Amino acid sequence: METTFQLSYALDTFYFLMCGALVMWMAAGFAMLEAGLVRAKNTTEILTKNVALYAISCTMYMICGYGIMYGGEDFSFFLKDIVGDGATGQDEPASYAPSADFFFQVVFVATAMSIVSGAVAERMKLWAFLSFAVIMTAFIYPMEGAWTWGGQPVFGMYTLGELGFSDFAGSGIVHMAGAAAALAGVLVLGPRKGKYSADGRINAIPGSNLPLATLGTFILWMGWFGFNGGSVLATASVESANSVAVVFMNTNAAAAGGLIAALLLARVMFGKADLTMALNGALAGLVAITAEPSTPTPAIATLFGAIGGILVVFSIVTFDKLKIDDPVGAISVHGVVGLLGLLLVPITNPLTEDGGASFVGQLIGAATIFVWVFVTSIIVWLALKTIMGIRVSEEEEFEGVDMSECGLEAYPDFTGGRQ
Amino acid sequence: METTFQLSYALDTFYFLMCGALVMWMAAGFAMLEAGLVRAKNTTEILTKNVALYAISCTMYMICGYGIMYGGEDFSFFLKDIVGDGATGQDEPASYAPSADFFFQVVFVATAMSIVSGAVAERMKLWAFLSFAVIMTAFIYPMEGAWTWGGQPVFGMYTLGELGFSDFAGSGIVHMAGAAAALAGVLVLGPRKGKYSADGRINAIPGSNLPLATLGTFILWMGWFGFNGGSVLATASVESANSVAVVFMNTNAAAAGGLIAALLLARVMFGKADLTMALNGALAGLVAITAEPSTPTPAIATLFGAIGGILVVFSIVTFDKLKIDDPVGAISVHGVVGLLGLLLVPITNPLTEDGGASFVGQLIGAATIFVWVFVTSIIVWLALKTIMGIRVSEEEEFEGVDMSECGLEAYPDFTGGRQ
Amino acid sequence: METTFQLSYALDTFYFLMCGALVMWMAAGFAMLEAGLVRAKNTTEILTKNVALYAISCTMYMICGYGIMYGGEDFSFFLKDIVGDGATGQDEPASYAPSADFFFQVVFVATAMSIVSGAVAERMKLWAFLSFAVIMTAFIYPMEGAWTWGGQPVFGMYTLGELGFSDFAGSGIVHMAGAAAALAGVLVLGPRKGKYSADGRINAIPGSNLPLATLGTFILWMGWFGFNGGSVLATASVESANSVAVVFMNTNAAAAGGLIAALLLARVMFGKADLTMALNGALAGLVAITAEPSTPTPAIATLFGAIGGILVVFSIVTFDKLKIDDPVGAISVHGVVGLLGLLLVPITNPLTEDGGASFVGQLIGAATIFVWVFVTSIIVWLALKTIMGIRVSEEEEFEGVDMSECGLEAYPDFTGGRQ
Repeated sequence: METTFQLSYALDTFYFLMCGALVMWMAAGFAMLEAGLVRAKNTTEILTKNVALYAISCTMYMICGYGIMYGGEDFSFFLKDIVGDGATGQDEPASYAPSADFFFQVVFVATAMSIVSGAVAERMKLWAFLSFAVIMTAFIYPMEGAWTWGGQPVFGMYTLGELGFSDFAGSGIVHMAGAAAALAGVLVLGPRKGKYSADGRINAIPGSNLPLATLGTFILWMGWFGFNGGSVLATASVESANSVAVVFMNTNAAAAGGLIAALLLARVMFGKADLTMALNGALAGLVAITAEPSTPTPAIATLFGAIGGILVVFSIVTFDKLKIDDPVGAISVHGVVGLLGLLLVPITNPLTEDGGASFVGQLIGAATIFVWVFVTSIIVWLALKTIMGIRVSEEEEFEGVDMSECGLEAYPDFTGGRQ
Repeated sequence: METTFQLSYALDTFYFLMCGALVMWMAAGFAMLEAGLVRAKNTTEILTKNVALYAISCTMYMICGYGIMYGGEDFSFFLKDIVGDGATGQDEPASYAPSADFFFQVVFVATAMSIVSGAVAERMKLWAFLSFAVIMTAFIYPMEGAWTWGGQPVFGMYTLGELGFSDFAGSGIVHMAGAAAALAGVLVLGPRKGKYSADGRINAIPGSNLPLATLGTFILWMGWFGFNGGSVLATASVESANSVAVVFMNTNAAAAGGLIAALLLARVMFGKADLTMALNGALAGLVAITAEPSTPTPAIATLFGAIGGILVVFSIVTFDKLKIDDPVGAISVHGVVGLLGLLLVPITNPLTEDGGASFVGQLIGAATIFVWVFVTSIIVWLALKTIMGIRVSEEEEFEGVDMSECGLEAYPDFTGGRQ
Repeated sequence: METTFQLSYALDTFYFLMCGALVMWMAAGFAMLEAGLVRAKNTTEILTKNVALYAISCTMYMICGYGIMYGGEDFSFFLKDIVGDGATGQDEPASYAPSADFFFQVVFVATAMSIVSGAVAERMKLWAFLSFAVIMTAFIYPMEGAWTWGGQPVFGMYTLGELGFSDFAGSGIVHMAGAAAALAGVLVLGPRKGKYSADGRINAIPGSNLPLATLGTFILWMGWFGFNGGSVLATASVESANSVAVVFMNTNAAAAGGLIAALLLARVMFGKADLTMALNGALAGLVAITAEPSTPTPAIATLFGAIGGILVVFSIVTFDKLKIDDPVGAISVHGVVGLLGLLLVPITNPLTEDGGASFVGQLIGAATIFVWVFVTSIIVWLALKTIMGIRVSEEEEFEGVDMSECGLEAYPDFTGGRQ
């Protein structure tokens, strides 16, 4: 019996670590996706933002974020304990390595933060963005994480789980939260110069490197197996292994459904097979299934993904009409479809005594997450605007932020810069 | 005993899922390889084909392909059952999660289909290609899969396994099958304009982005560990774990052998270290070992890979002389070397009472797969040609299919398109 | 009991194979990093070097390297045994598949060799480099590997482990060794034309594709989980699973610390957020923690990484002042910080009766590795210089080595070469 416990512990730990490595890989996916969808002159800066926000997320979540989210009263338990004896303060005997849990959780924070960088691309100051990343990953995300996955009551008032809220892997907790912070940033920042003409025309600003954007999408698709699959939180039994397998299958099916639906809809609406819409459709399918990938059949998962793929196309068009400029469509993919994902949960996992979700619970949860992240974010963005400014000068924007912020062109041999 | 069964079930399931995720990753590899080997003006379209064919493969195989391949009489058992109660209709108690089996199988279909997209690149209509993908992944591939891995008799006449046919991970069933469909398409389609001059000269059309092609090759190499390693179908015992480990080792060794042999041969034949031949050599090594990676020693695996690497160089040159225009060399890598892989099996795994292969069995199996896929494919390609046309206009081909099919350039800031 | 042994064997084997696949993936990381940091005209050649050195490493290590490193007296035991019966000559019953051990070890050799290719980029002859790769991976690396991980006495004189030397995953044995060979090559080769002006000015030669360099860094970061995590050498118990989890967590933390420190320092020193310094900072953090990722707390790991990130910036600047031209900073990242990594070990893992390291032991070990690799390398480089020449002609260097060595441009549609 002792030995089988050891094996179960080891297998669950290894499963967490492999899933965590796949989620870490999503950071590369966001970096490539965003680098492919901005113009060449803003590429170095978006890459710098992406690598730096990942590093900041890992560090701030270690310092206090993890403690806020799972430590209850003691905000700094993780840092204290790990400086002490390497344990993590859990009282009950763990069924997997505590460090593996931290590793799996920490890469989720970076995902939420990565969503922001795309939406504010091509005109935000680098250091203002990184300052926001510090606060988002140390405090804003961990607080709403404590109220949801952490099981804490919201401001001591109500407990979301008791109200019928359920978010398996984070359609709301991670994706919609990131999008809420992004929306706040975009509203404070304003659109890129030249995006919306005075006469009301919307000008397409095409991405400079579509192979990179496609690679980024494939990386995210792959990493999402870890994101959703790891959220089963155990695999060392027939029941949990079956659940993990269903989650992998459905995650893949939803992405496929989203891609096909968005590709066909774009063909109908625009007359062309719009690759960027297809990519956003795949990502929307992934976001849509993330709130509950374990209960649908694969056919239902494909359908849910397709609904996400259709919604994201309309959402991107609508935000553009509202002059809310999101260069990579992140608010639509992660925010609008994140909300959809939450609302789809009760269809296949309705509220029972054993758990599940109700529409009311999902709406309360979504509202709680959105209001918290949006309000705190807009306060922080406005504070940063006052303190250091968040937008580059018009001249810097015209020249591209690569030279002004990073001093390096991304493609010096191709764009005629030097050679 | 109950607990060790649970652990074994969980480990085998997790192994399938990790291997499946690696095979899914191969879709990104094909996309990058092909995007790197076409011209800049056809890059968006090849990317669109690659992401869309992956999504179509996953969806069609779910709807009926998996049922045709493994469901016996009941073509739609998987879709019906999964809509019902999430089980997959297997009667005997499984030793791993049924959904994990589906997930692992579904990513193989996409591999077969990915092979086609490269061969018909730069001149085929997008929607004709995607229509072919629907039929290939729903019907053509699943039928030959049923006759081989599914164990069904070929048209009720003969059973390949009984005749001494063995294809461990799919040199024939996946790779040669994809190449047979590709060859049919290329013959119906004809070569790219400008590839073969009226005076008989063969014009090199260099790929536009060799780092992408190299990345794609590395991705495929990595993903192949899942492709071959997962085909052991179990890992939770000393015997199967040893087998999986040998397969990983030999898969790597064969790719290395193929790369070195092709690089040296290209140096001798062309006087230069031709990177694209080296990459095709690595892929040829991988295809060559795929029919039987578990019985050779690593030295023999390296040798088999090297034979594949040499064969692919001669094959590419020969197809060019025959004016069969395959922009990425897919028919040579997957078809010619796929056949080689089948014929190498009896050397290290000869036919005995416990299994293995005979040369006659391999030839019958190869002929069965090739004839079936080639004949059905040519019928479908000709039907598509009649119904909707499969080739873009000469003007569209000259301008590049990106603008006419997708309405988006892949690299607008670099090729002088807009910016 | 039999069954739990089987499961433990299977889990440890699978863990080795997954970690090995991640380390193999690092070969792609080095290829992308180096391709992104050289000029467009030298990109095909650096890609060719990277794929070929990986294949050569795998083959030479199989032929004799593994035998030298772990076979004791019998240099060719692996090749002989595998040609014989597939076993690897181990006498004691293994706790995981012998082939998995070989697979995990073989990908380390390629890592050491990959370090060299970046440092000698843009001016070394391709075939001279590949000749060096043969000797490095067949003999130079395996010899120092035998003295360290292999446990053999150095020239029969002293045993490093007994002197208090410890290098968990290879800060010295792999990274500093690669850097020592690179330094020898750079000294024999001399700087690139135009790098150092006659008037003493140092001219920046910017990399041509920063998204590729960023992708390469992310790939290396991800692969490093396998590099360090697999070096625990077992995972199928609570103790080893905890250790693997700590290693994953700390590896990630150190990279994050290194990136942040280098980014901030570069901002202070150069006034800009230098992306390439940030990337080198992350890699430096990874190298710094590699000698001992299992004993620090994550806060200490972040700090060690940050020290590495600061050191690498100063080191890169210093090597440039010394006119030692290393286009990608490999000698600084892997050599200087590799030494740092060794010297940090005694802080968290001091010498006791159960193992650990002393500063004196680390210095003796570092000196042994460096002197051996540097002296043998310089002999080989000088011999190659005499036999075949190691530097391309001035004209070839000016035109770029892609056309002269490989006959293929990396980006023909973008750099105005043909189209």
